[in-house]
Amino acid sequence: MDKLLFGVAYYDEYMPYERLDKDIAMMKETGINVVRIAESTWSTVEPQDGTFDFSHIDRVLNAMQKAGISVIVGTPTYAVPTWLVKKYPDVLATTPQGQNRYGPRQNMDITNTHFRFHAERVIRKIMEHVKDHPAIIGYQVDNETKHYNTTGPNVQKLFVDYMKAKYKSLDVINKIYGLDYWSNRINSWDDFPSTVGTINASLSSEFATFQRKLVTDYLAWQAAMVKEYKRPAQFVTQNFDFEWRGYSYGIQPDVDHFAAAKAMDMAGVDIYHPTQDQLTGTEISFGGDVARSMKLDASNRGKNYLVLETEAQGFPQWVPYPGQLRLQAFSHVASGANMLEYWHWHSIHNSAETYWKGLLSHDFEPNPTYTEAKTIGKDFARLSPHLVNLKKTNSVAMLFSNEALTAFNAFSFGWGATEKYNDVLRPMYDVLYRMNVGVDFVDPSSTNLESYKLLVVPALYAASDSLLQRLNRYVQNGGHIVYTFKSGFSDEHVKVRTTPQPGIISEACGITYSQFTIPRAVSLKNDPYQAGKDNVVKTWMELITPTTAKVLAYYDHPVWGKYAAVTQNTYGKGMATYIGCMTSEAVLKKILEDASKKANVWGSDQQLTFPLITKSGVNQQGKTIHYYFNYSSVPGSVTYPHQDGKELLTNESVSKNKSMPLEAWGMKIVEEN
Amino acid sequence: MDKLLFGVAYYDEYMPYERLDKDIAMMKETGINVVRIAESTWSTVEPQDGTFDFSHIDRVLNAMQKAGISVIVGTPTYAVPTWLVKKYPDVLATTPQGQNRYGPRQNMDITNTHFRFHAERVIRKIMEHVKDHPAIIGYQVDNETKHYNTTGPNVQKLFVDYMKAKYKSLDVINKIYGLDYWSNRINSWDDFPSTVGTINASLSSEFATFQRKLVTDYLAWQAAMVKEYKRPAQFVTQNFDFEWRGYSYGIQPDVDHFAAAKAMDMAGVDIYHPTQDQLTGTEISFGGDVARSMKLDASNRGKNYLVLETEAQGFPQWVPYPGQLRLQAFSHVASGANMLEYWHWHSIHNSAETYWKGLLSHDFEPNPTYTEAKTIGKDFARLSPHLVNLKKTNSVAMLFSNEALTAFNAFSFGWGATEKYNDVLRPMYDVLYRMNVGVDFVDPSSTNLESYKLLVVPALYAASDSLLQRLNRYVQNGGHIVYTFKSGFSDEHVKVRTTPQPGIISEACGITYSQFTIPRAVSLKNDPYQAGKDNVVKTWMELITPTTAKVLAYYDHPVWGKYAAVTQNTYGKGMATYIGCMTSEAVLKKILEDASKKANVWGSDQQLTFPLITKSGVNQQGKTIHYYFNYSSVPGSVTYPHQDGKELLTNESVSKNKSMPLEAWGMKIVEEN
Amino acid sequence: MDKLLFGVAYYDEYMPYERLDKDIAMMKETGINVVRIAESTWSTVEPQDGTFDFSHIDRVLNAMQKAGISVIVGTPTYAVPTWLVKKYPDVLATTPQGQNRYGPRQNMDITNTHFRFHAERVIRKIMEHVKDHPAIIGYQVDNETKHYNTTGPNVQKLFVDYMKAKYKSLDVINKIYGLDYWSNRINSWDDFPSTVGTINASLSSEFATFQRKLVTDYLAWQAAMVKEYKRPAQFVTQNFDFEWRGYSYGIQPDVDHFAAAKAMDMAGVDIYHPTQDQLTGTEISFGGDVARSMKLDASNRGKNYLVLETEAQGFPQWVPYPGQLRLQAFSHVASGANMLEYWHWHSIHNSAETYWKGLLSHDFEPNPTYTEAKTIGKDFARLSPHLVNLKKTNSVAMLFSNEALTAFNAFSFGWGATEKYNDVLRPMYDVLYRMNVGVDFVDPSSTNLESYKLLVVPALYAASDSLLQRLNRYVQNGGHIVYTFKSGFSDEHVKVRTTPQPGIISEACGITYSQFTIPRAVSLKNDPYQAGKDNVVKTWMELITPTTAKVLAYYDHPVWGKYAAVTQNTYGKGMATYIGCMTSEAVLKKILEDASKKANVWGSDQQLTFPLITKSGVNQQGKTIHYYFNYSSVPGSVTYPHQDGKELLTNESVSKNKSMPLEAWGMKIVEEN
Repeated sequence: MDKLLFGVAYYDEYMPYERLDKDIAMMKETGINVVRIAESTWSTVEPQDGTFDFSHIDRVLNAMQKAGISVIVGTPTYAVPTWLVKKYPDVLATTPQGQNRYGPRQNMDITNTHFRFHAERVIRKIMEHVKDHPAIIGYQVDNETKHYNTTGPNVQKLFVDYMKAKYKSLDVINKIYGLDYWSNRINSWDDFPSTVGTINASLSSEFATFQRKLVTDYLAWQAAMVKEYKRPAQFVTQNFDFEWRGYSYGIQPDVDHFAAAKAMDMAGVDIYHPTQDQLTGTEISFGGDVARSMKLDASNRGKNYLVLETEAQGFPQWVPYPGQLRLQAFSHVASGANMLEYWHWHSIHNSAETYWKGLLSHDFEPNPTYTEAKTIGKDFARLSPHLVNLKKTNSVAMLFSNEALTAFNAFSFGWGATEKYNDVLRPMYDVLYRMNVGVDFVDPSSTNLESYKLLVVPALYAASDSLLQRLNRYVQNGGHIVYTFKSGFSDEHVKVRTTPQPGIISEACGITYSQFTIPRAVSLKNDPYQAGKDNVVKTWMELITPTTAKVLAYYDHPVWGKYAAVTQNTYGKGMATYIGCMTSEAVLKKILEDASKKANVWGSDQQLTFPLITKSGVNQQGKTIHYYFNYSSVPGSVTYPHQDGKELLTNESVSKNKSMPLEAWGMKIVEEN
Repeated sequence: MDKLLFGVAYYDEYMPYERLDKDIAMMKETGINVVRIAESTWSTVEPQDGTFDFSHIDRVLNAMQKAGISVIVGTPTYAVPTWLVKKYPDVLATTPQGQNRYGPRQNMDITNTHFRFHAERVIRKIMEHVKDHPAIIGYQVDNETKHYNTTGPNVQKLFVDYMKAKYKSLDVINKIYGLDYWSNRINSWDDFPSTVGTINASLSSEFATFQRKLVTDYLAWQAAMVKEYKRPAQFVTQNFDFEWRGYSYGIQPDVDHFAAAKAMDMAGVDIYHPTQDQLTGTEISFGGDVARSMKLDASNRGKNYLVLETEAQGFPQWVPYPGQLRLQAFSHVASGANMLEYWHWHSIHNSAETYWKGLLSHDFEPNPTYTEAKTIGKDFARLSPHLVNLKKTNSVAMLFSNEALTAFNAFSFGWGATEKYNDVLRPMYDVLYRMNVGVDFVDPSSTNLESYKLLVVPALYAASDSLLQRLNRYVQNGGHIVYTFKSGFSDEHVKVRTTPQPGIISEACGITYSQFTIPRAVSLKNDPYQAGKDNVVKTWMELITPTTAKVLAYYDHPVWGKYAAVTQNTYGKGMATYIGCMTSEAVLKKILEDASKKANVWGSDQQLTFPLITKSGVNQQGKTIHYYFNYSSVPGSVTYPHQDGKELLTNESVSKNKSMPLEAWGMKIVEEN
Repeated sequence: MDKLLFGVAYYDEYMPYERLDKDIAMMKETGINVVRIAESTWSTVEPQDGTFDFSHIDRVLNAMQKAGISVIVGTPTYAVPTWLVKKYPDVLATTPQGQNRYGPRQNMDITNTHFRFHAERVIRKIMEHVKDHPAIIGYQVDNETKHYNTTGPNVQKLFVDYMKAKYKSLDVINKIYGLDYWSNRINSWDDFPSTVGTINASLSSEFATFQRKLVTDYLAWQAAMVKEYKRPAQFVTQNFDFEWRGYSYGIQPDVDHFAAAKAMDMAGVDIYHPTQDQLTGTEISFGGDVARSMKLDASNRGKNYLVLETEAQGFPQWVPYPGQLRLQAFSHVASGANMLEYWHWHSIHNSAETYWKGLLSHDFEPNPTYTEAKTIGKDFARLSPHLVNLKKTNSVAMLFSNEALTAFNAFSFGWGATEKYNDVLRPMYDVLYRMNVGVDFVDPSSTNLESYKLLVVPALYAASDSLLQRLNRYVQNGGHIVYTFKSGFSDEHVKVRTTPQPGIISEACGITYSQFTIPRAVSLKNDPYQAGKDNVVKTWMELITPTTAKVLAYYDHPVWGKYAAVTQNTYGKGMATYIGCMTSEAVLKKILEDASKKANVWGSDQQLTFPLITKSGVNQQGKTIHYYFNYSSVPGSVTYPHQDGKELLTNESVSKNKSMPLEAWGMKIVEEN
C-alpha cells in the first residue's frame, strides 16, 4: 500500500435526498481518500430475480473516480432481498431456535443451494460490470460473515458427511466422544441424530469446528469468484469481527480467523469500542494485534491490515470527547493498520441503526466529531510516508485456540457459570497492553511459535498431544510460557485426559493435580504480589502439588493451604509458569511482569504504564517510529528513552531522556533519526 | 346521567351455590345501584354452537329490576368458548410467539372470520333477547379490547391491503421507510414480507398503527351492532384500560383511545392502583383525566366518564387501610367519574383471579372493606345531586401521541435501554398532579389545543410537519409549551429529520443540536433548581446550542459544560420551554412550576402540594365544588382559599382562609355558596 | 439386609481403556461391597433394534461375583438409544415447550406405545439373561423417573379418559373447577381443550395429579415385569429424587413418592447436597426421613432404605473437606440408610457430567476423597452388626401433600411471587433438624397419623373435608398440630372454601379470617420470641381474629396491629397452633420449641443444637445407638445424657453426663450398654 487510507462506508442507496456531489465535496475537505460501497445492497442491485440495476454503484464509482477517491466494492450478500426469500423460503436459516424470519441481515443459511446460486449470480454480474473501473482498489467479500448457527437438516447432513470423511468409523467416534454415556451411542450412520440437542461437548465442539469450516469455505468460494475478475493490483479482503459484548471484546467464536484469512489478500477487521471516560485503546490494540497476525509476511511476522469499520460517533454513549477521534485513529496506525474507515459517512434516518451515528449526524452538517476528523485526514496525508506500512516485531505472543474456546465455553467453570474463554484471555491481554508489552497472536496452526521468547497461553482447554508436546519442546529449547488453569485438561476431542493433570504439560510445568474447586474466601498466602485488597482467588482453583516446580504462591485457606496456586518450573533451557486459579488483574500483572523479565522481554517501554501507552515499529525508510498516547483526561508526560529523533506532528526534535508533555487524550509520534 | 352510580361486576355464573337473593340484599345494604354482567360468559350463554341459554342473564336482570338496581350488559366476546376453538382452531391468534393456546381470555384473532361470525351471532342473540328489559341502562362492548398482537398471515394480508390503499406505491414506501437499508427493499407487492421480523421501526410503527386500527374497527363494529337494538336512553361504552405495570400505569400502546372512543356514547375505563402506604391517587387522577378527555362536550372539553372497574380488596398487597376505599371513591368522582364499579362483588373461588379479591371475600361475609363501602354508598346517594356530572375546565393539557409512543419505544434510549414513552410522560404528569395543576389530555387528532394556556409535550418523537407547524403557531399565538428531549426528532414515518434538530420546533424553541449522549456523572451547572442530591442528569442528554433561547440550565461536566440542558424561548406572543435531558422529578417540578407561572395557570390551589390534593369542578347547579384529599397516614390540614361554602360530608359551613383538618386518608368536599 | 452396603455406580461402558480388574482391586481396597450397573446403557445393550449385546453386563457381573462384590442391576430405560428415536420420533415427549430433542436423558414420553414396547423388550431380554446370576442382590427399575411434563395429544387423551372415569359428568367438573370463569366451560367431552394453556389451577392441579399417576403406573409396570424374573431374596427398588435446586432440596413435585414406592420392595433415593462450609447435614436428614417414611414396617413406622446415589467429589464446589465424607456417610446410616452408594466410581471423561466428579478423579489415581472413603469402608465393615437395620421411632411427623404442593405453587403468594411449597416446608423441617427433633413424614394417604404426638403441617393449601375433619379429630383426641398460613384454604379441587377461613380447621384452631395481605415493615408486637432483628413478618400475613384461641403474637403495624399472627387453641384433649404469617427461622424455632414442649416431645437430645446433631435408633441387638455429629469446622463437645455405653469408633466406654469432644466435622457413635 503506498499511503495511509482514510475513509468511510458510503451508501448512496440510503440517502434521503440527492447528496452525492455535496458529500464528495465534504469528504475531500475531510481528507477522505477511500470509500467502501455496495455491501448489503442486494435489493437495490437486483430488485427482482434476474433484473439488475447498477445505477447506484456506477454513479458513485464515477463520482469518486472524478474526485480522486478510491473505492472498495463489497459483494452484497450478507443481507438477502425480499424476492429471494419469497421464492425460496429455505434461504432463511434454521437454527436451534427455529427458522429465521425476514428482516435482519445475516439470517440466511450460507449452505443453502438457492442462496448460493443467487449469491453467485449477483456477485458475477457486479464483477463483470465493475471490473474495469479505475476507482476500485479492492473488494470485500460479504461482511462480518459467520455461520449464524445454521443447523437445519441440510447442515446436519453435511455434518454427517464431514464426520464420515474425518473418522470413517462410528466406533471411533463413539469411543473418543464417549457416546455410550446416557445411551448416546450411534450404531449406524443412519441413526445419527441432530447435534442441536446434544449434551456431549465433544460432539458439539466438533460441530462448532464444522460450522467454522462452513464460514471458511464460504468465504473462500466468494474470494475465488472475485479473483476471477479482479485486476492484479486489487486486493480481496473480508471484514472480520470479534466476539461482541456491546463492543469488540475477544476472539470470535464463530469464525476461524486464521483459516478464513488464507483466501484473502489482506486482513480486514472492524473494531468498535467504548469512548469518553471508558476509552482505553485496549480494543484497538487487541483487534489490531489479531488482524495483523492473521496473515504473515516474508519474515513470518504479521502484516499490515485494514480497519474496514470503526465508529465515528457511534452509539449515543460513544460520542467522542475532543481529541479522542485523533487518538483512536493514530492508535490503529500504531498497531499496523494501513487503512481506517468509519462506519459510516452519514447517520441513517431509518431502521435498526438510526442511533449508530456516522461521521455526520442526520442533518449532514459539520459537527465537532466531523471537524476533528478533518485534522486526521490532513495529518494522515502529510505523515503517510512516515507512517504507512509500519513493520512490527514482537517477542511475545498469545496462543489462542478456537477449539479450546469452544470446549472451554461448553463447560465454563461448571453449571451456571457464565464466564467464557475470552474472560480468561482478555485479562491477560489487557495486563500486557497496560504494561506496554507488544504481542502477536498465534494459534495451533501457526508455524512461527519458535520466533517468540514468551508465549502466553490462556485456558488451552482442548489440545492434541502433539500441540502440547510441541509446547514442551518449545520450553525445553529455551522458550518461556505462562499457562493458566484448565490448560492441557482435555484432548482435541474434548475427552478429559486420563493421566494426572495438567496432562502432557505437567512435565514442563513440574506440577500435578487431580482436584479443583470453587474458591470461597480464598487468597494467596502472604500476599506474595503485594496486591492488598486485590489479593483474591476467584471462580476457579486447582489443588496443585509441585513435582519439580517452585511454588510462587500458595492458597490461603484453612483446608487448601497446602496446595500451590502459582508455580514456575525450569525445564530444559526454558521456563514454564502455571497459574492455577483466577486472580485479580493486579496479581496477573505481577505474574506476567515476572515472566516477561525472566524471558528477557522487559525493556525501556515498560517504564511506561497505562494510561500512557507506547507502540512502535519500523517504517518504510527503515526508521523506528515511537507512538506515545495518553489515554486519560489528565495531562501526562513521558521521558523519551530512545535514540534522538523528531516528533512528527510538531516537527520538533526530541532528545533521548527528554520529557515530553502529553495533553489529555493527546499523543506524540517520534521518528528516530 | 341523573345520579352517581355505585356498583360491582356480578357473575351469577361463577357462584359456588345459590346466592342471588342474599347478594342483592347485601348490595342494597351497601347502596349499590348498578351491576355489570355477562361479559366473558360466552360458554354459558352459548354452551354449544348455536345453542343459547340466557337463564343466568334473565334471572339476574329480573332480580335486579325488582331490587331497583340498574344493569350494564356486556357482550361476552373477550373470552372464547371451547367448542369454538375446537371447531375453528384458527380462532386462536397467531402472534410472533406462535399460535395462542386455549385457556386465557383475549387469546383470539379479532380479525378471524369464524370468530367474527360467531361473535356477531351471539351478540345479536343476546341483544334480541334483552333489548326490552327495563333494568338495562347501557351496554359494554367486549372488554379491555386490544389487538393481542395478532400477526398471522391473514393479518399480514390485511396489512398489505392497508399499505396499498394508504401509499399506492412501493417506491414511496421504500423511500420514506428507508427500506434500502440492509436490503429490505420491497420491489413487488407479492414480495411483501411479514412484518414480524422487521428491524425497520418505520415499518413496525406503521404496523402498530394498523393494529390499533384493528381495535378501533372491531369495537366500532360491535358498537354499531349493539346500537341497532339499544333504546335511545341507553348508552354504549367500552372498558378501556391502560399500560399495565402491575397496575394502570400509562398511555395504552395497543389502542388509540381517542379514535376508538368515537364509536362509544360514553367513555369507560378500568383503573387499578397500589394502596396501603403506596396509595397516592395518581393513577385515579391520570386514568380519569385520560378517560374524561376521550370524548368532548359541547364546549369542546372533556366529558364525564364511567369507571367500569376498580379494585375493592384487589391483590393481597392492596387490601385498603381504613379510609382508603372512601378516599379512592371520591377521588374518582372528583376527576369527573359518574360511576364507580368494583371488580368484583365476590372473590372468585377458582382459576386465575382467585387472589384478585372483590368487595366480599370468598366467604361472602361482611368484612372491613365491605363495611367501608357501605358508607360510600350512603354518601353517594345523599350527595349525588351535588356531585354528579361535575364539569371540569383545565388550562393545561398534556399532548400525547400513540404514534410517538410506538416510535419512541422502538428505540428507547438505544440498545438495551428499557425506558418507554410512558417513563417520560408519567413523571411529567405526576409532577403536575402533585402540584395540583389539573390537566386534560390531547392528541394529534385533537381540535381544541388552542383552548389551553399550557401544553406539556413529552417525547413527541414521531410527528408530521403539520403537527409541529401547528404547535409553532400555537406558541406564536400566545400559547406556552414545555417540550422534552426527542420531540420533533423524526417525521410521522419515523424517518429522522434531515434538518438540524429538534427539526421544525427549533424555531419556536430557539435551539439547535446534532449530537446527544448518555450522561455519566452529569448534573445541572450551579444547581439552578436547588435540587441538591436530586440535581442529576440521567439516561439521555442532548448537546444543545441556543439560537434565540435563553438557557435555564447548562450541563455540569468537564466536556459537555458548554451545552444547554434546559432552555426557554419567547416566540411570537408565547413561550416554549425545552428540556434536553432526563432530570429528577424534583427538577422537573421546578421547570413545570416556572412554566405554569409564566403561562398564568398558577393559582391558590397550587399553595397545596401532595399529599394534600385538591380537585374542583362545577356541578349541575352551577356551583363550584372543591375536593380536598389527604393522601397520607399523617393527618393534615388545608387553609380553604376560595369563596365561602359548605362542607358536604359534615354539612358544616366553611369560610375563606379558614383552616380545615384532614384525617389520615381523610377528605373534605366544599361546595361554594 | 444383613450388613451395611457401601458402593458405587460403575459404568464399564464409559471406560476410556480397559480398567475392570484394576478398578475392582481398588474397590476391594476401599471396602466397597456393592455396585450398581446398567441403568442408562440401552444403546450399548441394544445397539440396534432387536440386536442385544450383554457383554458389558456379563463381564462386570462375573468379575464382581469373583471379587465378592454384590451388584444392583438397573433397567436401562431412562435414556433412549438413537435408533429408537430415528424409527419412532414420537418417542420424544411433547411438552408445553414443544417436542423434546435427542440428546439428554429423560426426554421420552413414558406413555408412548413405541417406547413402552421397546422398553419392555429390552428389560425382559436383560432379565432373562441375568436372572440367575448370583452376584445380583436387587434391581433398580428406571432411574429418577418423572413424567418429564409429557403433554402431547396422546397424554391429553389419556387425561380426558381419566377425567371421564373419575368424574363421569362434565357438569360436575365445570362446577367444582369453576370453569364458567373466563368462558372455560366445557360442554362436551369432544371439546375438552389441552390443559397446556389452562389458567385454571383446579384443572392444572388435577393434571399434575394425573401426571404423577403416570409415573406411579409406569414404575409399577416395570417393577411387575422385573418381579416375574427376580429371585425371592432379591429386591426391586427405584431411585427417587427430590425437588432440585442445585441440590436435593424438598418434596418432589412430579412424583407421588408414597404411591410410587408401593410397587417397590425397598425405598431408594439419591441425596445430593452442598459441602465444604455449607455442609449442614440437613439434606441427608431430610432425604433420609422422607425415604424411610415411604414404606412402613410391621409396627407401622418407617423402614430402612437405600441411598442409591450421593456425591463423592461431586461438583467442583463440593470437593469435601477432610472428615466430611465420613460425617456424611454415617449421617446417612444414622437416618436409617442400609446402603450408601456414590455416584460414581470414576469421573467421566466426556459429556454433560464431566464436572460431576466421582470417587476417583479422571486420572483413576488415589486422591484425598478416595483415601477418606477407605476409612468408611473399613468402619462400615467392622461396625455393620451394630449399625445396620437401625430402627427409628419418632414422635413427630411432618404432614406433606403433593396435592397441596401443586395447588400452592399454582398461586404461591400471588402474581410474581416465586416462593414454592417447599419454601414453607423446608424452614419448618430445618428448624426441627437443628433442634434435634427427629421426624417422620406422613401424607394424606397415611394411616398412622395417630401414632405421633405432634404433627407439623406446612401450607396444607388443598385438602378434602375428610382430611381436615380427621385432623380436627386427631387434635380432639389429644394430638398436637402446628399449622401454617394457607392451610385449609381450598378443597381437594383447589376451590377456595366458601366458609370463613381457615375452613374446617377453624374449629380446632379457634380462629377465623377473611382477609390477608403482603407485609411491609411488619413485625410481631413486643417481640414475643426475643428474635431481635429476626423479628420480621415477611411475604404473607393473614388478618386473624381468635374465636377460642389464645393469641401468642399480634402484628406490630399501625393498621394491622389488632390482628393475631400466631395463635394456640386447646381443642378436646389436644392443642392446635396456627402460624398466620411467614416468620424468620428464629421465630419459627421458638414456636416449634413451644409446641414440642407442650406435645411432650422435648427431651435430653434437645439440649444439643446445631451444629451439634444427634440421631438415634435401636439396633438389631435391641440396643440404642446414639450418633453425635459436629457439622462445623470448629471442634465442639457434647455431654452424653443417656445410659452408659460404648463409643464404637474408639471402642471406649462412655458414662452418662460425661463430656465427649467432637473434632471439626467429627463424630461419635455410642451404643448403650
